[in-house]
Amino acid sequence: MSSEGSGGVLLGIDLGGTRIKAARFSTDGEWESESQSHSNGREKAEEIFAKLHSVASDLIGSDRLAGVGVGVAGVFDAQSGRIVKSPNMPTLNGFDLRGQIQSAFGEVPIHIMNDANAAALGEFHAGAGMGAESMFLLTLGTGIGGGFVSGGEIWEGVAGVAGEVGHMCIQADGPLCNCGAKGCLEACVSSWALIRDANAAAGEKPDSPIAALPSLTPEDLAVLAAQGDEDARALWEKAGTMLGIGIANLMNLLNPECIVLAGGLAKAGDLLLKPARKTWEVQAFDRAHESTSVRMGKLDEWAGVRGAVQPLLRP
Amino acid sequence: MSSEGSGGVLLGIDLGGTRIKAARFSTDGEWESESQSHSNGREKAEEIFAKLHSVASDLIGSDRLAGVGVGVAGVFDAQSGRIVKSPNMPTLNGFDLRGQIQSAFGEVPIHIMNDANAAALGEFHAGAGMGAESMFLLTLGTGIGGGFVSGGEIWEGVAGVAGEVGHMCIQADGPLCNCGAKGCLEACVSSWALIRDANAAAGEKPDSPIAALPSLTPEDLAVLAAQGDEDARALWEKAGTMLGIGIANLMNLLNPECIVLAGGLAKAGDLLLKPARKTWEVQAFDRAHESTSVRMGKLDEWAGVRGAVQPLLRP
Repeated sequence: MSSEGSGGVLLGIDLGGTRIKAARFSTDGEWESESQSHSNGREKAEEIFAKLHSVASDLIGSDRLAGVGVGVAGVFDAQSGRIVKSPNMPTLNGFDLRGQIQSAFGEVPIHIMNDANAAALGEFHAGAGMGAESMFLLTLGTGIGGGFVSGGEIWEGVAGVAGEVGHMCIQADGPLCNCGAKGCLEACVSSWALIRDANAAAGEKPDSPIAALPSLTPEDLAVLAAQGDEDARALWEKAGTMLGIGIANLMNLLNPECIVLAGGLAKAGDLLLKPARKTWEVQAFDRAHESTSVRMGKLDEWAGVRGAVQPLLRP
Repeated sequence: MSSEGSGGVLLGIDLGGTRIKAARFSTDGEWESESQSHSNGREKAEEIFAKLHSVASDLIGSDRLAGVGVGVAGVFDAQSGRIVKSPNMPTLNGFDLRGQIQSAFGEVPIHIMNDANAAALGEFHAGAGMGAESMFLLTLGTGIGGGFVSGGEIWEGVAGVAGEVGHMCIQADGPLCNCGAKGCLEACVSSWALIRDANAAAGEKPDSPIAALPSLTPEDLAVLAAQGDEDARALWEKAGTMLGIGIANLMNLLNPECIVLAGGLAKAGDLLLKPARKTWEVQAFDRAHESTSVRMGKLDEWAGVRGAVQPLLRP
């Protein structure tokens, strides 16, 4: 379906540390086409924005733009329109994203939010959370992000920080996290935590299959575990157990209708889910884990792009 | 102010493991008078209910009853009107509380909820949370309870279990909790956890002032710590640190406008709060702990009674 002659097109953009993804939608939220560009954390802010502009312009073509929604990896300040802090794209710290979008695309409705919240809105309105009253999205990737959706909207908290489930402590005095705290969920189960533990395991057993891997990635560790390697299985078992604690905490604290798992690490499937389920069935109240379902995300890496336009859709 | 000649009186009741507390209110929520009766976990359900009825009848006197709100220590099932499970009053398991209230008081509006949620509503609408948009109540007592209030209402979750912050795991493989899980907040900081740790400390040092205490209570341990006893101080330091982790988790996950601390253990004040603050300032994101304020409850043990009538007030 084309939007020619209609109310124009909406653009959803996911501005991440390694890729800029964008898609165009009808004003009803119907997906029309998508495009992406690679970025890296070392480019200047102007270069990153030029790529965003280019990807976006190609998608808009000669159609009328009706609005732009952006999910950005970092803390965005809605009052100033600036990116406060973007750990993976430090050159964007302080960048006037809303102002630049306005200059580039004209006076159209613009909505900017955190990328994890955008992904949560996407899964809620068009993915695994469809039809639920409430949902918590857990994105399991390099780090761990999250977003709590209730009544169709993100619970943002008083200063927009809510949803930082990756930095919920589940192990007092546990492993040091990148955020400076200890025992955060992300420091116990995430790509970087898994690779840290795999390196330690390889160091302890220099003759093991793990130590023989040319590179330590979650994908390689999953293959090794599937082949029956005990050390690799133990790594996933530990990560899954920690994930189960995090999920149990969400069940007991928020008891949402569903918890949706997304992100690269979620692709490990049962390697992660089996020990996780075993754990949440003990750690969470029966009434909590029996009523909150755990589902896999449906929109994959495009959830954020879809969620970014949600606030701009015709009601 | 008397409610004579007005729209009648509302009754708020807090049905707990050791006491039945009740108060009468005008239909605007104005507090008029209160009364209480002691109970214990060994009485029959009929005996407990007879006490509730007696306390309530005295308060109503000859006035017209306009509604009854109850907060009950345990899991209440709104569909059947029955108490599903009350760990501290097991004789009430399965008790048809709504049916009995209806039989005793006639066809008036009745609202029954969990006691921690009732206390949260009370502090939100008439105590430390007044004027806030969102609030999380932490009741630090024998166990730990909680309730999340947003937009004036309790976030109950899909099966009414939400708010069980006492059973948020903050220490994977930590001390065993009464619920069967490990490392729950309640198993790390609560009256029973403190007494458990004090007993262990007394056992390790039979000549210490802690071991010389005639009984191990939080109050006695607070006095000892105030006198400078290092072992007692260490116990509070540890409990406060664990509390700080729990508070930091709520800040990062929900970023409410305020977190309100209530319950007997909160009376320890700085013994608990100083180490807690030191911890949450490290464990929570700056933007989170700078925007979420931590306050002491104002309604003390009467928060639940006030909150229980909230759903029955004239809008």
